[in-house]
Amino acid sequence: MPTTTGTREPRKLTDKGQATRARILEHAAELIYANGVHATNNDRLRRAAGVSGSQINHYFPTKESLVLAVIAWQAERVLAFHRGERFAGFDDLEAFRAWTDHYVAYERAYQEGCSLGSLASEIIKTDLDVHDELAGAFDQWRAIFRDGLQRMQDQRRLSAAADPTRLANLLLAAFQGGMLLAQVAQEITPLRDALQTAVDHVQTFATSPDADVSPRAP
Amino acid sequence: MPTTTGTREPRKLTDKGQATRARILEHAAELIYANGVHATNNDRLRRAAGVSGSQINHYFPTKESLVLAVIAWQAERVLAFHRGERFAGFDDLEAFRAWTDHYVAYERAYQEGCSLGSLASEIIKTDLDVHDELAGAFDQWRAIFRDGLQRMQDQRRLSAAADPTRLANLLLAAFQGGMLLAQVAQEITPLRDALQTAVDHVQTFATSPDADVSPRAP
Repeated sequence: MPTTTGTREPRKLTDKGQATRARILEHAAELIYANGVHATNNDRLRRAAGVSGSQINHYFPTKESLVLAVIAWQAERVLAFHRGERFAGFDDLEAFRAWTDHYVAYERAYQEGCSLGSLASEIIKTDLDVHDELAGAFDQWRAIFRDGLQRMQDQRRLSAAADPTRLANLLLAAFQGGMLLAQVAQEITPLRDALQTAVDHVQTFATSPDADVSPRAP
Repeated sequence: MPTTTGTREPRKLTDKGQATRARILEHAAELIYANGVHATNNDRLRRAAGVSGSQINHYFPTKESLVLAVIAWQAERVLAFHRGERFAGFDDLEAFRAWTDHYVAYERAYQEGCSLGSLASEIIKTDLDVHDELAGAFDQWRAIFRDGLQRMQDQRRLSAAADPTRLANLLLAAFQGGMLLAQVAQEITPLRDALQTAVDHVQTFATSPDADVSPRAP
């Protein structure tokens, strides 16, 4: 699970210790999201979090341990967001449209990309031993979409021709690729197009037209 | 244009000078593709290309100039591949299916990702002044798909409801996102699913079923 691996758990920490660790982690996540892993060093983190270098080293003795904790932190946030009431388990098309609309309106999408995907892209070729963490997080993310689509299919709202796993991979890939293309273009269009069109494709499997959802609207 | 910006053009170079520069560039591209930008330093490049540090500095005085030249080099290769006879301008579904099959069978897809996209992801948050280069390359790539789809539509082989630009963004995003997810998972399934399903979506706009192309086959 993203929340329990890759870093020393603060089990024996005092409340104050836990708060310090959480503050370091939050600032590290923000610095990495805004500037990338390589530009995030102890000096910048120390200043941002208002802690000493020895405090950072105490909670995160290596850069790997810090990056692992940030992956877990971002994964937890992304998964919690997708599991939130707002999307109701992604078992109707409106949830997928609302999800698209959220990210199309999210101004950091085309500035910094996906908080988890951009971090993954940046470190996937490094020697950091983070592959299991990343794979686990993306597996869970994919499963949220797949399970929602499966429920739609079980309830005969998606045709038997739909393959929930393949559609989930399309949705997640469109999201990650759209985020990269939006960052490169410095504007949201590639992400918007990719997400809306991926959801349009899910809709082609709908067994009854949903008057509240207009496919292929520009 | 990717081939003419971001680096000192070898106009005044001798044949030998051009060959040396090309050798450095090719090895730099390979090192960066396999290990990432940050792990590629002059020492490794010197050994790989069999040149001296001063030769590298002569042709590429800064890391930025080297990275820009590698972007141009990779962009040129990717665009030339997509413009090749094999895909005939991407103006039929078979070309898109052949393109999917190529990358699904390409073993480096899930090891190192897209040669251009993985480089873009790695450096998009750095201070390197490479955004225009990257944006130009991806614009040209997207245009290859869009123009092919537009021709299909002009010839009434795609319905008027299709939006070639949006479909092109879906295809390119599915490719980039699928490459990232395949790297994370260390297996090809996410890329295969994303590409095949994106092409399936294009096919939903086909005005006549094509007996040679089976949609949604697992």
